[in-house]
Amino acid sequence: MRNSQTPFAAPGELALIRRIRRRVAGKSFAGLTLGIGDDCALLQPKPSEQIAVTTDLSIDGRHFLLEGHPPEVVGHRTLARGLSDLAAMGARPLAAFLSLGLPRELTEAKGRKKAWIDRFFKGFLALAKTHKTPLAGGDLAESPVAVADIVLVGVVPKGRALLRSGAHAGDLIYVTGALGGSAAGLAELIKLAAQSGNRAGTPSVPKKMRNSLAAHLYPQPRIAQGLWLQRRRLASAAIDLSDGLSTDLAHLCEESGVAAEIDASLLPLHPNATLEQALHGGEDYELLFTAPSMAHVPRVIAGVAVSRIGRMTRPSSGLPTVTIRTERGVKALEQKGWQHFE
Amino acid sequence: MRNSQTPFAAPGELALIRRIRRRVAGKSFAGLTLGIGDDCALLQPKPSEQIAVTTDLSIDGRHFLLEGHPPEVVGHRTLARGLSDLAAMGARPLAAFLSLGLPRELTEAKGRKKAWIDRFFKGFLALAKTHKTPLAGGDLAESPVAVADIVLVGVVPKGRALLRSGAHAGDLIYVTGALGGSAAGLAELIKLAAQSGNRAGTPSVPKKMRNSLAAHLYPQPRIAQGLWLQRRRLASAAIDLSDGLSTDLAHLCEESGVAAEIDASLLPLHPNATLEQALHGGEDYELLFTAPSMAHVPRVIAGVAVSRIGRMTRPSSGLPTVTIRTERGVKALEQKGWQHFE
Repeated sequence: MRNSQTPFAAPGELALIRRIRRRVAGKSFAGLTLGIGDDCALLQPKPSEQIAVTTDLSIDGRHFLLEGHPPEVVGHRTLARGLSDLAAMGARPLAAFLSLGLPRELTEAKGRKKAWIDRFFKGFLALAKTHKTPLAGGDLAESPVAVADIVLVGVVPKGRALLRSGAHAGDLIYVTGALGGSAAGLAELIKLAAQSGNRAGTPSVPKKMRNSLAAHLYPQPRIAQGLWLQRRRLASAAIDLSDGLSTDLAHLCEESGVAAEIDASLLPLHPNATLEQALHGGEDYELLFTAPSMAHVPRVIAGVAVSRIGRMTRPSSGLPTVTIRTERGVKALEQKGWQHFE
Repeated sequence: MRNSQTPFAAPGELALIRRIRRRVAGKSFAGLTLGIGDDCALLQPKPSEQIAVTTDLSIDGRHFLLEGHPPEVVGHRTLARGLSDLAAMGARPLAAFLSLGLPRELTEAKGRKKAWIDRFFKGFLALAKTHKTPLAGGDLAESPVAVADIVLVGVVPKGRALLRSGAHAGDLIYVTGALGGSAAGLAELIKLAAQSGNRAGTPSVPKKMRNSLAAHLYPQPRIAQGLWLQRRRLASAAIDLSDGLSTDLAHLCEESGVAAEIDASLLPLHPNATLEQALHGGEDYELLFTAPSMAHVPRVIAGVAVSRIGRMTRPSSGLPTVTIRTERGVKALEQKGWQHFE
C-alpha cells in the first residue's frame, strides 16, 4: 500500500499503512518481485504468460451496505469480485491491489473493539490466502462514502485465455454451482437489518444463519474451475455471473455474435432461491461457459457441480438474443440485471 | 471498461460504456492483446520485462474539487497521478485502467452542453495519447461522491526499475523541473472559485490564467525523464513528488535507511511559488532522484531542467532524518505533506 498522494490525516494514515504492510509482509510469492512500499509494485510473469488485469469498484449503498454487511464480509466480497473475473479468463492470480476510501471513523478502534478496517482486512486477507494472492499495493484516503476498488493481476498461458467472444451456434451452455443463492441471501440479510432497526454498532450475522446466507456473504470465486477449463482447452467461451444470468449471458452472446436458449428445468437453483433470483439475481460468482456439443464436460470440476443449462443458437434479426424454454413454451429472457439495494 | 457488477441505471450505463469503448477503439498498441469488453484485459510484456503496477484514488473534495476544477483538468490529473508513479520507477506505460464512481447528473448532457464525464474523458484521453497509453478497462458505477481510481501498468527491463530503497550516504539529490507551482496554482484557483461564488454550472478557468495555473491544472508526468535515468543507469533511487518534497524525501530516506540534507538556496522554485509551497506543496509530479557524487548528471534531461538540491547523509539516532540548510543554519525539515483543500 503506497502512500503516494494520500492527503490529510497523514499521521493516522501512515500508521495504518504500516499496520497493513506488517500484516502482509514476511511471505514471498513467485512472480511478485516488489510489494508494498515503493511507487509501484513489480511483477515477474513467465515468458510464456500473458497478464490479465481487472478492476471492480464497490461503493457503500450500492455494492455493499455498511449497515447490513459485517466488515469481514465486505472485505471478502471485495476481493471475490476481482478473483471471479480472473476465474472467468482461466487465469491464475498473481497479485491484488486495493484502493480504499473510508470515513475516518471506520479506521479507528472503539475502546476494545477492533476498527472496521481491521475486520475488513481480516475477511480480505483470509480469501487472499486461500487463493495464494498477495496484496501488493494500493492506496488509502479519507472519503465521505466508503469505497473500495479492487485490482487483480493474473497470468494465463499465451493465447489460452477463456474469452467471451469464442462461442459458436450449437455449443452447449454450462454453469458451475447453484444460482440465485446470493440474491436470496441478500433478501434475508436486508430483513435481518430491518429487524435490528437502528441499533447502534457494526452489523453481525447470527451464527445459525451463516450457513444459509453463505452464498451471499462468502461467495467462492471459481479460480480452480477456470484453470481446469483453460488447461483442458474445453470451453469455447466463458464469463462470470456477477450481474445475473440473464445479463451476463446476453454479454457473452453479444461478444460472440450468437444467440442462446436456456431451459428453465435445467437451471441449478440454490435451495433458498426462486427462479427469478436464479435468472436475474447476480453476485453468484459462478462461471458460465460454453463448449462444443461433442466435448465431454464432466459433472463435477474441481469439487464443484457443473450443469448444462442450454445451447447457443444462430442469431436472427427480429428475434430475441436470449430465450428461455419453460413448460409453457419459449419466450424472450429479458436482461433484468439485478438492481442493488433498490 | 467492463460491465461486470455495475448495478442500477443499466441502460444508461451500458450506453456510456459503449460510448467510451468506441472512443478508445480502433488503434492497436504493442503489448495490449485484449482491451475493453471482456472479464479482464490481456497484456503481453516482453520476456525481458517486469511489470510495474500502481493505483491512485482521487475523491471529490479531497484530491479535486468538482466546484473548482474543470472536468478536463480532473481527467488529466487523474491519469497524471498514475503515470507519475511509473515515471518514478523508470517504467514505460503499457495500459491504464479507470474505475469511476459518479453521481448520475455528471453522466448526463444538459441541453447542448456536453456531459461532465465526456469532458473528463477529453482531458484523460488527451494525456493518454501523449504518452501512448491505451485505456484498457475499468469499471463504472453510480456514486453519491465522485471518485476515480486510476491503475497504471507499465514495463521495465528486469532488475532495472528505479527504487526508493537504493540511495546511499554521499549520493547527491536532484529534482526535475520547478517546485511549488501546483500548490501556488491551487491557491489561485480556490480564490477564483470563491470569487465566482455559487454561480451555477461547471467551473472554467479564464484563458489568461491558464498559463500561470498550468503547473496545477496540467502537471506533466516525467515519463521520458524516468526512462532516460533508467536506461543510463544513472539514478541510485527515485520517487515522484506527489505529497510534497518534505514528505516524499522522508519516504525515500526511510526506504533507503539514510538521512538527507537539502539546501534551500538550490531549490528550483516555480516563479509563482513560495519556499513553503516548494517544500510542502505536493502534486508537482516532478521526479526526485539520487545519484552517486561521481555520476555526471546533465542539467537538462529530455527537455526538462534538472537541479541538484542536496545530499544523502548517514542517519544518526536522535538527529532528524531530513534537514534543510538556509542562511540561518541547518534545521530539521518537518514532514508537512500537503493537506488538500483544508
